[in-house]
Amino acid sequence: MRVCVVGCGAVGSLFAANLATLDDVEVWAYDLSEPHVAAIAAHGLRLVGSGEVTGHPNATSDPAAIPPCDFGIVATKAMHAASAIAATAHVFSEGGAVATVMNGVGNEETLAEHVERVIRGTTFPAGKVLEPGVVQWDVKGETTFGPFEPRPLELEAIEPLADACTRSGMPASAVADARPPQWRKVIFNAATNPIGALTGLTHGRVCERPDLRALVSGLVDEGTSVSTAQGIVLDADPEELIDHAARPDVAYGHRASMLQDVEARRMTEIDYLNGGIARFGRELGVPTPLHDAVTALIKGVEASWQ
Amino acid sequence: MRVCVVGCGAVGSLFAANLATLDDVEVWAYDLSEPHVAAIAAHGLRLVGSGEVTGHPNATSDPAAIPPCDFGIVATKAMHAASAIAATAHVFSEGGAVATVMNGVGNEETLAEHVERVIRGTTFPAGKVLEPGVVQWDVKGETTFGPFEPRPLELEAIEPLADACTRSGMPASAVADARPPQWRKVIFNAATNPIGALTGLTHGRVCERPDLRALVSGLVDEGTSVSTAQGIVLDADPEELIDHAARPDVAYGHRASMLQDVEARRMTEIDYLNGGIARFGRELGVPTPLHDAVTALIKGVEASWQ
Repeated sequence: MRVCVVGCGAVGSLFAANLATLDDVEVWAYDLSEPHVAAIAAHGLRLVGSGEVTGHPNATSDPAAIPPCDFGIVATKAMHAASAIAATAHVFSEGGAVATVMNGVGNEETLAEHVERVIRGTTFPAGKVLEPGVVQWDVKGETTFGPFEPRPLELEAIEPLADACTRSGMPASAVADARPPQWRKVIFNAATNPIGALTGLTHGRVCERPDLRALVSGLVDEGTSVSTAQGIVLDADPEELIDHAARPDVAYGHRASMLQDVEARRMTEIDYLNGGIARFGRELGVPTPLHDAVTALIKGVEASWQ
Repeated sequence: MRVCVVGCGAVGSLFAANLATLDDVEVWAYDLSEPHVAAIAAHGLRLVGSGEVTGHPNATSDPAAIPPCDFGIVATKAMHAASAIAATAHVFSEGGAVATVMNGVGNEETLAEHVERVIRGTTFPAGKVLEPGVVQWDVKGETTFGPFEPRPLELEAIEPLADACTRSGMPASAVADARPPQWRKVIFNAATNPIGALTGLTHGRVCERPDLRALVSGLVDEGTSVSTAQGIVLDADPEELIDHAARPDVAYGHRASMLQDVEARRMTEIDYLNGGIARFGRELGVPTPLHDAVTALIKGVEASWQ
């Protein structure tokens, strides 16, 4: 089996390094960072932290160098997905199936504009790039793959990817409906990430302020209404996940990735989190005034940098 | 007539300097800034900008030095009103009537906890303290006084204050219902000020972004619902005022005072703007989810400084 990981930042690198340890999987790591690609080619791709792994994927910044692949795993930031899949679509033109493990909702639709066979996916592992070729694995967790409903693949066409991930140390499952974990994750992220970004508070401090916790719950309620309107039954209550993460022994002191983006004046993923929920809401006739407000505020923050 | 201006920042100074030019009005300027008080005592209180005026009020930081006054004008920041009126209440214990010209709603209720005779008031002039004893007069505008409904004064008891202000160069009127201009102003401020503070954008840039302008309108709608539930008919449409202010020749480039507060890490007036609207909403059974959200976010920003 040949797999191309499109975008080898933190999450893509977790997949690429682990999958590359399997004898029966040939991995291509595609990334625009020349130093990262050069380091991987020279020394392999090294994970430290929650798991210590060094894999040796093929690494390139040149889409033309990548041979036809059976599977793709797109792990760019959501706003870079369109350009990344446009550049690599030819790799999957011989029947390759491409999964997204990106944050947010609406990413499958982006992939489907460029490739025929799309796999819905959600992943919970997280990390950060420490230096070229070295990635810190912060959080382990499950990955879920499933059909992209408008052009659904058979589960048997998805299972080999999930199986390879699991065998490599990234537990994954192929399920008939992958939307519940995806919406659970996007609701969690959209209800907490921009609140940290707008206030500068850690996850725990957001949750211990009753007024902000009420805003978080309002965002959860709107997100749940949008997912329910699609017939999705969430596999866990986002409220419980949020309170769990607020515990001192879990992620009380966590500064949301969107807060880190805002502090570094990097464009955020707001369009795929709150903006994505609001877009689905509009299509379904479900009002999302709080997600609209939060989206507008974060996009206003981004605009203030210009 | 003897008038005590309680709080001689920018707005208080506009009243104190102008009123002190009248032969028949004795003005006492009370402020906690010793340099400001010393400068006023030495050289008078000088206004520059929209009007060039130098008045010579009595100035003090010692409440015990102030003789009984017929009128008070409280012009502190809203969060300092309680301590300021507690310190000066004795000045009005011989029948003095005390007006607020502070931002926001709920200030009359604060005054009424300390003095018997309260006048509802709203003022549109604005400026800033340039140095001790010198205040820039940025914007001229109307002041409206009226009864505080729970313990209403006769209009005849209010008119002498409005008349003195008008004669001194600060046009003011005494009306049977001073709530319309007050709610127009608080809705305008609450719909725009915190949006500038959360995004870093000027008034004009907030208004030219359709998503943020929609949030502004949502805040206006909620505020109007709360004022309508009290039987208030606004004297002008806040939407028109907001669009007028966004014009390049008016206040396109204006950075909201709350944005200036946030950048300087000063506590904001959020509790008296959006928080005040939300509090009235709760008492009246009118939902204000957007004002609740904005209040929680700004208070979260304030909390992030600790």
